[in-house]
Amino acid sequence: MATAEQRLAELGLELPPAPGAVAAYEPWVITGTMLYTSGQLPWRDGKTLLFKGQIGAALTLEQGTEACQLATLNCIAQLKSALGDLERVRRIVRIEGSLNMAPGHVMASPKVLNGASELVNAVFGERGRHTRMIYTFPELPLDTACLIVFWAEIA
Amino acid sequence: MATAEQRLAELGLELPPAPGAVAAYEPWVITGTMLYTSGQLPWRDGKTLLFKGQIGAALTLEQGTEACQLATLNCIAQLKSALGDLERVRRIVRIEGSLNMAPGHVMASPKVLNGASELVNAVFGERGRHTRMIYTFPELPLDTACLIVFWAEIA
Amino acid sequence: MATAEQRLAELGLELPPAPGAVAAYEPWVITGTMLYTSGQLPWRDGKTLLFKGQIGAALTLEQGTEACQLATLNCIAQLKSALGDLERVRRIVRIEGSLNMAPGHVMASPKVLNGASELVNAVFGERGRHTRMIYTFPELPLDTACLIVFWAEIA
Repeated sequence: MATAEQRLAELGLELPPAPGAVAAYEPWVITGTMLYTSGQLPWRDGKTLLFKGQIGAALTLEQGTEACQLATLNCIAQLKSALGDLERVRRIVRIEGSLNMAPGHVMASPKVLNGASELVNAVFGERGRHTRMIYTFPELPLDTACLIVFWAEIA
Repeated sequence: MATAEQRLAELGLELPPAPGAVAAYEPWVITGTMLYTSGQLPWRDGKTLLFKGQIGAALTLEQGTEACQLATLNCIAQLKSALGDLERVRRIVRIEGSLNMAPGHVMASPKVLNGASELVNAVFGERGRHTRMIYTFPELPLDTACLIVFWAEIA
Repeated sequence: MATAEQRLAELGLELPPAPGAVAAYEPWVITGTMLYTSGQLPWRDGKTLLFKGQIGAALTLEQGTEACQLATLNCIAQLKSALGDLERVRRIVRIEGSLNMAPGHVMASPKVLNGASELVNAVFGERGRHTRMIYTFPELPLDTACLIVFWAEIA
């Protein structure tokens, strides 16, 4: 069985440095057997916000999906930073996804957020099988295209 | 003391089949003593989305309340599917309700979501006493009138 | 080390009475070692909703920050009501903040919610280091300027 890091490598993906929070809070907290991240943005290398504006207007739906993938990579980077080893993740319990969506794309939004879900499923396999909460806003903080949060059960 | 299933029967309500998820995620996950559902829509028999459009525009406030009741029935169906027996529910800890609300109904939205809360209170009694988070959006995925999530403590 | 109540006093802040819920749900629930509140509004003395309308339109950004502080005080009042003693709080795990934001203030919203985060950090010190989820809506229930939720690990 491949590890999560091996699967990332097979997918040609590299973990960015775990970004700091954009305000007076922490990127993650552990309580008991649970780890919760704060909202992760589609930062490239923790500094450049790569996807800004409304999905379906300033950005295509495909770019929205890529934004979700990149924000999810940053969530995984937070797990790595918090736990040292991604094999300590027992289960991704929930993904919360806030999307900056232009009006009129109600059929597309679940598919856009699959950018997050499918990456988690590919990297964590059975351990990646998660519940999901989707929020579609006409605007998001810092004009980010999306915000992704992980809840993970850890060993 | 009546069981949750007896109370459902007294209310003349039948559990629909537990709907599958609409994208690449799971309808529920158990971690430790907690069960979390994904967002449940007002599906009738798992196939027809019965309430679509904005509450307060395409739908009346009363229809919005009914949509919340139906989505909540689907949450209860997920509990039944996950646990086998609703008596394994110790407590409904939190209900999350996303409403597809037309602008200008800020005083009505908490009452609309009572469609979920009052059903949970009626079915689970003391075990149904829950916290609540309400989100009012101008649009929701698949144009659903609402999305309801349960967090339950389980035995 | 000052207690949370001593820090509140040093800040010149008094806990309001813990407000009841505005609909058919509970202001807080404890499950295992976790306490979750429902959404707290900027009530003064549990009765008058002090900040109403959109932040950045009806209200200034500064008033939005004050609204977050007041709703956070109400969260702390719920902790006190639930636990008797704020020293039973081990960690504020997560703050959820829904803001009633006028369009066009995407750079300001994280700073507005710092009204909640900075108060928690000041009152609880190390125990106050939390994750955060921000939601910016064009409208909120009862026309409140904000809704704040706490997740707390307790002893």
